[in-house]
Amino acid sequence: MLRVIPMGGVAEIGKNMTLIEQDGEILIIDCGLMFPEEEMLGVDIVINDFRYLIERADRVRGIILTHGHEDHIGALPYLLRDLNVPIWGTRLTIGLVDAKLAEWGLVDYTTKHVIEAGERVEIGPFAIDTMHVSHSIPDGIGLGIHTKYGIIVHTGDYKLDPTPVDGRMTDFAGFERLGDQGVLLLITDTTNVERPGHVPSERIVGQTFHDVFARAERRVIIATFASNIHRIQQALDVSAHFGRRVAILGRSMAANTDIAAELGYLNVPEGIRIAVPEIDFLAGHQVTILTTGSQGEPMSALSLMATEEHKKVQIQPGDTVIISATPIPGNEDLVHRTINHLFRLGADVVYHPLAPVHVSGHAYQDEQKLMYSLVRPRYVIPFHGERRHIAHYAKVIQALGHPAERILRLEPGDILELDGDDARLAGRIDGGAIMVDGLGVGDVSHVVLRDRQHLSQDGILVAVITVDRATGKVVAGPEIVSRGFVYMQEAESLIEEAKQRIQAELAQAGETPPDWATIKMDVRASLSKFLFAITGRQPMIIPIIMEV
Amino acid sequence: MLRVIPMGGVAEIGKNMTLIEQDGEILIIDCGLMFPEEEMLGVDIVINDFRYLIERADRVRGIILTHGHEDHIGALPYLLRDLNVPIWGTRLTIGLVDAKLAEWGLVDYTTKHVIEAGERVEIGPFAIDTMHVSHSIPDGIGLGIHTKYGIIVHTGDYKLDPTPVDGRMTDFAGFERLGDQGVLLLITDTTNVERPGHVPSERIVGQTFHDVFARAERRVIIATFASNIHRIQQALDVSAHFGRRVAILGRSMAANTDIAAELGYLNVPEGIRIAVPEIDFLAGHQVTILTTGSQGEPMSALSLMATEEHKKVQIQPGDTVIISATPIPGNEDLVHRTINHLFRLGADVVYHPLAPVHVSGHAYQDEQKLMYSLVRPRYVIPFHGERRHIAHYAKVIQALGHPAERILRLEPGDILELDGDDARLAGRIDGGAIMVDGLGVGDVSHVVLRDRQHLSQDGILVAVITVDRATGKVVAGPEIVSRGFVYMQEAESLIEEAKQRIQAELAQAGETPPDWATIKMDVRASLSKFLFAITGRQPMIIPIIMEV
Repeated sequence: MLRVIPMGGVAEIGKNMTLIEQDGEILIIDCGLMFPEEEMLGVDIVINDFRYLIERADRVRGIILTHGHEDHIGALPYLLRDLNVPIWGTRLTIGLVDAKLAEWGLVDYTTKHVIEAGERVEIGPFAIDTMHVSHSIPDGIGLGIHTKYGIIVHTGDYKLDPTPVDGRMTDFAGFERLGDQGVLLLITDTTNVERPGHVPSERIVGQTFHDVFARAERRVIIATFASNIHRIQQALDVSAHFGRRVAILGRSMAANTDIAAELGYLNVPEGIRIAVPEIDFLAGHQVTILTTGSQGEPMSALSLMATEEHKKVQIQPGDTVIISATPIPGNEDLVHRTINHLFRLGADVVYHPLAPVHVSGHAYQDEQKLMYSLVRPRYVIPFHGERRHIAHYAKVIQALGHPAERILRLEPGDILELDGDDARLAGRIDGGAIMVDGLGVGDVSHVVLRDRQHLSQDGILVAVITVDRATGKVVAGPEIVSRGFVYMQEAESLIEEAKQRIQAELAQAGETPPDWATIKMDVRASLSKFLFAITGRQPMIIPIIMEV
Repeated sequence: MLRVIPMGGVAEIGKNMTLIEQDGEILIIDCGLMFPEEEMLGVDIVINDFRYLIERADRVRGIILTHGHEDHIGALPYLLRDLNVPIWGTRLTIGLVDAKLAEWGLVDYTTKHVIEAGERVEIGPFAIDTMHVSHSIPDGIGLGIHTKYGIIVHTGDYKLDPTPVDGRMTDFAGFERLGDQGVLLLITDTTNVERPGHVPSERIVGQTFHDVFARAERRVIIATFASNIHRIQQALDVSAHFGRRVAILGRSMAANTDIAAELGYLNVPEGIRIAVPEIDFLAGHQVTILTTGSQGEPMSALSLMATEEHKKVQIQPGDTVIISATPIPGNEDLVHRTINHLFRLGADVVYHPLAPVHVSGHAYQDEQKLMYSLVRPRYVIPFHGERRHIAHYAKVIQALGHPAERILRLEPGDILELDGDDARLAGRIDGGAIMVDGLGVGDVSHVVLRDRQHLSQDGILVAVITVDRATGKVVAGPEIVSRGFVYMQEAESLIEEAKQRIQAELAQAGETPPDWATIKMDVRASLSKFLFAITGRQPMIIPIIMEV
């Protein structure tokens, strides 16, 4: 029996990890992290629940990685420390994995196999064909997984750039050859199915850089994703062409550039790279600065420059800033704010959609139609997209003649069972989202999030009294401490009155011995009502009673 | 001397309120509210600082309102309660103002003058021509303000819809007549200057409604802005055409519909309106539901339907939902999440940009060029936009031959002084953003916001001890209470160890009498270090010492 289990749990389905299981032997495809949703306050990242795998540790044959983005490799340390299985990936992907594992002291802990796209690898009972795919990071692959029950094609994250910067095209022929053999199941990236046509080639961004550089009289600052090596290559090339030297800002940008250069994925023209302090010794027209921060992340180099808080680089009037990215949904506001600040400082800002400064890494609708037509699968799992993308993809391939009942819309953790002919849901595993906050994995519960939400809106008020255990008399307090509720220095009379309310509640509670649980509830209710009437706010109220 | 002062303070400049001052006499244009920025946790709305006006109460001649959107009328109650001045506005605008003032018990408190677009009104020393403008709410006006020193044209929020739903075109001729007389200053809406061409006519949305209704077999649910009366009209018309009856969900949608219908801005076909419970007695194809929630606002009717929490309406498979709006930047994620939920429940969702279900209320670039060319001003204040829009608008009109030095890029609160010839900055007033949280206006300080931010990320831990004042001995505690930090029920040993740390700090402090301030600091430092080492988090730590 063949099983396919997409993991996931935040907005997108199956993107971060997929399990393929044949007669109990398990292959893991990718092991990425997810980014927290807006209401997951304070949460750093989200990972899948690995218990299903850990319980079956002896049957996990390995992990194959499609490419080196965080949402495909970022959760590896969390899995590997509990489940030491070998990893397969292309050279750049493994290079990025090594850098990540080194930070965790896990670098020599796991067996890694470097593969070349086009190669066939054997992992447990699975023979896997690998096909190069074009994406926003080099060295991505799609997979053709040969199983007893038929071939599963997993596209990875792909697009069909006809003129890629590194000259390496998506391996159409490889996908088509699999199609010719008959494909049981296509698991496919649907991210951009809402966009008609084709993704423009990455090269148009290079053309934009060229145009902008040609008229820039002072420094050019390019913000982009640290992993977009082709974009960085184009920035280096155009800088070399115009006689500019290049400084790199941002830890991840510097690290990725080093790895890619060392592994031969990035060609850094001789002598072009300068250290950041050298910027100040060159004229503006001799300088390019490559930086992170294209998403307006508050602590990124570009944001700090925009708010004049960067220690080493100050924006100067006449600088040109290229935001070579589009905002990820939810980041629009941060990005626009950064752009506004840069204009305020006198920079000229070149950004999407006013100039073609970015292209997506994911196939548009026509490319997805082509992929479908090359593979001609019996079943399809639309994948790596939100439900709206999956619904839309289903419409698109139905229009190509694919039967509706052979489009499998899975939810994260769903177990799909396939034999050669039929496909059916066979229960689900708990693949859900585990929140990571600091060092804690899974210890932030919904109670904690609800409290953070409450605290973030109206703050907290703590009221303490000390009472004599024997007599029930108050011997100290009430003391009131509050944060995030009102500006305490200007709220003296409010706090004073709140103390009187507490005393009134205590006075009413005549009983001996006093019922402190009830008194706490009454104090909380009384304060809550009083504070809401005066301020219209509902801080969290915590009465504490100390007994002596 | 003529002074122009744009107010504002959040992202957009001058949008909510502008002051025109001639020899000390003040005209106020609009009095709107702003929406809080992302880091203004718990803040409900933001208003301008009105002190400049209140200090000059005897010289304020009146308020003229360009249209009835919240960001142009929403702060009126906050101003009026301190400064009772007469208001001028068109019939629908005053109708919406009345509804707002009624909620504050201010409805008969202020003199209101209803004007008809095209009319000339006199407010203090200013004669003001009013020109009808098309926008996403009916009855908007632009202003031609005749001053001693020349004419100021204020466009209001406008676009040039060539085929408006109510047949009322933007008054090109009115703007042009002012241009013919010679305009000193143009204050103009730049919101959509980044978009080339013209806004499509509102009617294309009606056409989309028609197409969607024609193929919808069950209920159609349309989510849009409650103030977009033309959109609501089109929804009513297409429902009537297809024999559907219409239920309205959402308090603001119902209230605005009633006001617009009563004042003759909305033509509600006889018998079409049904109460919400009547939905259940009709077949799906007989029902349209009009609702708020097009921005994915968590407590809106549409969001509650999407998460299956709405008390009266459940989404049924086969329902069609039209999101007749585009997400305001920052809301994309919420909107997408709502769409995903709706798909999950089996609805078909029609949304931007997959179908033309929304058009903007603000002129695109070519319309802005036309407006500029009609008015031919000596000076321009690009306005009602963020800095990126203002920078872009400046480029656009420079390309039309407008001299760069006569484009005035003002910041909120800047005082622009004009005589007939020259314009100069003459200081600034404090027009800044005042945060409103519940009933408190301006009492949420940056300290409070910083605390809310801290609380939202890592929560709080309160440690209390009671000590004997005379001996310095601890007589009760330490007691630890925490919220939003860790799930307390599973953190017993962590809390126990934290208590031991506190005791260790207390034991170290041998002095008599103990220096409680220093002890508190040491306890905080010790706990902070300990908790960070174990959890990687930095909760707010509040030590409290009670003395008996």
